[in-house]
This record gives sequence, structure tokens and C-alpha cells, in this order.
Amino acid sequence: MYGAGDVRVEDVPDPKLEQPTDALVRVVRACICGSDLHPYHSMPASEQGSPMGHEFIGVVEDTGSDVATLQRGDLVIAPFAWSDNTCEFCREGVHTSCRNGGFWAAGGIGGGQAEAVRVPLADGTLVKAPVGEDSALIPSLLTLSDVFLTGHHAAVKAGVDPRTTVTVIGDGAVGLSAVLAAKRLGAERIILMGRHTDRTDLGREFGATDVVAERGAEGVERVRQLTGGDGTHTVLECVGHMPAYEQAVGVVRAGGVISRVGVPQYEEAPVGFGSLFGRNITLTGGPAPVRAYIEELLPEVLDGRIEPGRVFDRTVDLDGVPDGYRAMDARDALKVLVQP
Amino acid sequence: MYGAGDVRVEDVPDPKLEQPTDALVRVVRACICGSDLHPYHSMPASEQGSPMGHEFIGVVEDTGSDVATLQRGDLVIAPFAWSDNTCEFCREGVHTSCRNGGFWAAGGIGGGQAEAVRVPLADGTLVKAPVGEDSALIPSLLTLSDVFLTGHHAAVKAGVDPRTTVTVIGDGAVGLSAVLAAKRLGAERIILMGRHTDRTDLGREFGATDVVAERGAEGVERVRQLTGGDGTHTVLECVGHMPAYEQAVGVVRAGGVISRVGVPQYEEAPVGFGSLFGRNITLTGGPAPVRAYIEELLPEVLDGRIEPGRVFDRTVDLDGVPDGYRAMDARDALKVLVQP
Repeated sequence: MYGAGDVRVEDVPDPKLEQPTDALVRVVRACICGSDLHPYHSMPASEQGSPMGHEFIGVVEDTGSDVATLQRGDLVIAPFAWSDNTCEFCREGVHTSCRNGGFWAAGGIGGGQAEAVRVPLADGTLVKAPVGEDSALIPSLLTLSDVFLTGHHAAVKAGVDPRTTVTVIGDGAVGLSAVLAAKRLGAERIILMGRHTDRTDLGREFGATDVVAERGAEGVERVRQLTGGDGTHTVLECVGHMPAYEQAVGVVRAGGVISRVGVPQYEEAPVGFGSLFGRNITLTGGPAPVRAYIEELLPEVLDGRIEPGRVFDRTVDLDGVPDGYRAMDARDALKVLVQP
Repeated sequence: MYGAGDVRVEDVPDPKLEQPTDALVRVVRACICGSDLHPYHSMPASEQGSPMGHEFIGVVEDTGSDVATLQRGDLVIAPFAWSDNTCEFCREGVHTSCRNGGFWAAGGIGGGQAEAVRVPLADGTLVKAPVGEDSALIPSLLTLSDVFLTGHHAAVKAGVDPRTTVTVIGDGAVGLSAVLAAKRLGAERIILMGRHTDRTDLGREFGATDVVAERGAEGVERVRQLTGGDGTHTVLECVGHMPAYEQAVGVVRAGGVISRVGVPQYEEAPVGFGSLFGRNITLTGGPAPVRAYIEELLPEVLDGRIEPGRVFDRTVDLDGVPDGYRAMDARDALKVLVQP
């Protein structure tokens, strides 16, 4: 990406093993993330450009001498943050704050929207999946890189369980993933706030019991009507803009939790007596420590109990990536799969 | 209180039973709260004045016809919010949001800094203590009205346990109570941020393992030094002013929790990527639902396992209440007991 709206497909030198803990991975499928649209909207024009993409599944092509758990030919899922999976933060389940980890497409590491990627700390980062690269499960497995587990993180941090009512704000791929995750955790009442019928229809299939198309004060009022005036125990905020935060404060029940996984496009927000404190509201969430969750969710994807890959509604090859951005930005596509 | 700095002791009509669910309680001990100092600093002058006080222990003098669990002569603890203890919010442990409850010194209900109080919803609100009104345990029992259980609420909402390191911000009576509560919940490392040596000395007796007298950036740096650069898993913010919030953000560990019980004197605060979101920090807390905790903690006060009443360092009679405010405001007294 060279600036807002400026996505180019270019030949770059092949990545090579640089550290003994590296693996080289040939990308089988990648995708475009809602968060990729933030620079697509606002990145200043640059001469150098940035590699893009942080979600991919691939096949191990080569490994450094210290890599112990992976071999050439393994199909692997790459979390959107790479990590050693051994430091105190990883052991505490905060892999996105790994003492030795980092993020794709930064600091000399490539992005996933590419033919191949050098993966640092490969033993810690990558998770093997026992399927071939032509498996029909690949799209759902790819959601374990980010989007489904980001929804899952929202639900886990909110403490969703069979006793909690849930509002999900946002009908993008993360919002729909949050619906599926909340349903999987036992929620019986899931109100999805979104106004794109094709998306909210999938949300209903994922488990939403109610859909609220209204936004702002009207949307808040509608959720309150649906909940006897009280709001829901948990609110999964999957957008990241201030109006979504304000909606979350408006629909959360006293004693409840707002769990954010949409990257906040603001720094300050109301948290005082009138918004959070007075009613004992908890605000939680952050970048999903995907690596902490993959092994738990993988079996359910493999046996088809959950199909989070249904959020993909378009596939492009590498040359089609600029069109993929345009389609997601125009909301013509919910989430775009990239098949190099 | 008739305005900032203007506390008067006046004869008012005796409270009377008004509802069949009321009890009349003669106050045995009340006290002055750190939060009473907020209007003491900022209340606009008024002709009417407001009754004051929301923490008291007393003896039941009379009960309405619907009161089933209390009798004349019972010694009772009054939580700082009155509640039915039966609605959904109370059952979920958020008694401060009780559907039928409210707060003292508001809406025709008197305050605890008085000779007697009409207690609404007496069955739900009051908790009997099996001691006489001359018991040496009265000060510690009185802390179950608010101050100790407010510190306890901070620690509970933060998830303090033997595996979590703790920073307590504030060496007022709530901060010291939070230290005691964290210790009781098994915390092994408790860093108390406060600069009044007589108070932090009591904090050490309550369980603080380290005291940091520095504030602001210097204080943050000191806590980070004490924790290998990482900060603590939990931060109990017992002040309520913005610098305390900023200190909390500065000393909390990635993946950690900031739990606030100091009433926020601000509405907006940093919560975006750079403060809370990026490191998966949870912000929680609020007015303590004291009623939810009294029965659990009461036995430990009765058998002397904990002595939260040690925060009281001065006793006044009703005529001495204005002096009590002055002493707390000047930090001559940590917490003032009122013996009508």
C-alpha cells in the first residue's frame, strides 16, 4: 500500500531464512481485514509503501536450524501476531504483548497478502493443521488467524456464558464472528446491531436472536425495549468508532461488560460516573491474543461444528487484491479471501 | 452541609416510620467518608442544606408492619446504599443499581451523621451483627458499611488472587482498606502508592510489601523498577482524580486490570490504543455493592481475623462533626468516627 486507496501488486525479492528460529511459509490463503481499511482510508502517500496482510495459512517450505516442531510440507495457521509462546506474557495468554514477538508487515517482516512470508519464532508462532492445502476447511481454518478468534476474544473477555445476554455492535466479519463465538459459549439471547440485511441474515444463522438496524440513540432505545429497559449483560463492540462506543455505553446493563475488539479510532472516551463508573460497567478487550485460542478452537473447525469461514464471500488472486480492497471498502464484499 | 466548608449540627424532626417496610434505627456509630469531602470542597452555598453521612451502625428502635427479619433492639449494619436485596440487579450482586433502592441523605431519607435514620426496605438493607452496642468490634463492623468493602470491591473486581501482583493508588482509608482486602485475597506483592508515612505505615501492617511515595511519572517509573519494568497485574485506584487514573495506566501490566473505586472527578479519560486497548487492559470498578459482601466478611471481623476498623484514628460526637470534616480535609485525621 502506497497511500490511501493506492494498493499495488509488485514483485519483491523472495523472503529468506534470516534467524535459526525462522520458517519460510508459502501462502496458501490470505485475506483482507477490516482493519486494513483504516490505512486504505487515511495512509499518507509514501514512496516506499508497506507490505500488507496479517492473516494467512500456508505450507512450510524451509525451517531454520533451531526450529523443532515444524517440517517442510506442514500446513500451518499464522496468528496475526508472532510470538515465542513461552514468555510470561504468552503464559498469561497475552501473546499480543509477547516480550519477543511482533506483527506482520513491520520491522522487516513481510505481510500475508503475498506468495511467501518469513515467519519469526516459528515454533512459537505457527500452529499445524492436519489437512491438505486443497481442503474445503481452509477458509474456516484461516479465520483462526484473526477474524473468528477476534470475535471469540470479545466474547471471552466479556465473560459470555449461558446466563448472559449479549449485544454485538457491528455486522462486519468480526461482528458476525462475535455472534458465532457468543452462541458457542452458550448465550441464549444475542442482539446484533447492523443494517446490512445480507450480513445480519448470516448473523442470524450464526446465532443472533434479534437484529437492530437502527443506530445511535434510536438503536439504544430499541435494544432497551428488547431487554425490559435494562440493556444486556455484555456488549461486544466490533467497530472501533466513537459512535459504536457510545452505543455500547447506552445498551450495557448495570454491572455489565463492554468488550472492545474494533481498533479504537479515538483515544479519549467517557468513563466517568455517568457512563461507566456509576453503574459498575467494566470496559475490556484489545487485540486478540489469537495464539492463546487456536488449539482450543481448531478441533471444532476440523469436525465442522463451527463454520466461521462463512464470512468469506469473495475470492481474489494476488492481482485481484486492489479490487478486493475496493469491494470491502464499498461493502460489496463482507470479507475477501486471497488465493495467491 | 450548607455549602463548601459549611457543616452545621442542627435539631431536625425525628424520623418516623413511613412505609410498612421501614425500620427506625438509632445511630450508634457513623463516620465521615472521603467522598463527603467532595461537596465539602465544591458544594454551592444553599439555604436548605443537605443531611450528610452514609455509613452507620445502629439499633433498631421500631419496624414497619411488613418487616419480617428485624426486631427492636437488633444491632444492624447499614450499607451505604439501601436495596431490596431481591431484584435481578441485587441477585446479580449490583445492589447499588437495585431496581427499588437508593442512597442515604437523598429523596427524603436522612443521613447517617445523625441520631436516628429511617431505613427503607429494612429487610433487604440491614444486616444484623450479633454484638452489643458497647462491643470493641463496632469500628471494624462499621467499615462493612462502606470503606473496607469498597476496598474489597476494588480487589474483587480486579481479580486479585495469589498469582496477581497489586498496586494500590492512594493512602486514604479506602486505599488502606484495599491493601487489607488484597492481602486477604492472597496477594503476595502489594505496592502502596502514598506519601503520608503514618498512613503507609498502617498500610504495611495491612499487608503492603512496598511503598512508593513518588507520584506522577516518577511514581510510575518507581513501580516499574520494582516489577522488572512490567507493572502489576492489578491496580486498585482509590483516589478518583485524573492524575491517579494516569498513574494507574502507567503502572498496569499488559493484560492487567485497573479497578476504580475512587469516585471519578472526571468524565473523559484515555482508553484508546495507546492507553488501554493496545495492551488488553481492563477498566472496571464502581460504587461498591456493599450489601453483596457483608455476610461473607462479617465472620472474619467478628472473630478478629481482620481489623479494618484500624483506619479510624479520631472520634467525635455530633457537635464535633464540623471539626471532623476539617481534620479529614487537612489530613490531620485519616478517618473520623462519629459517636452521637
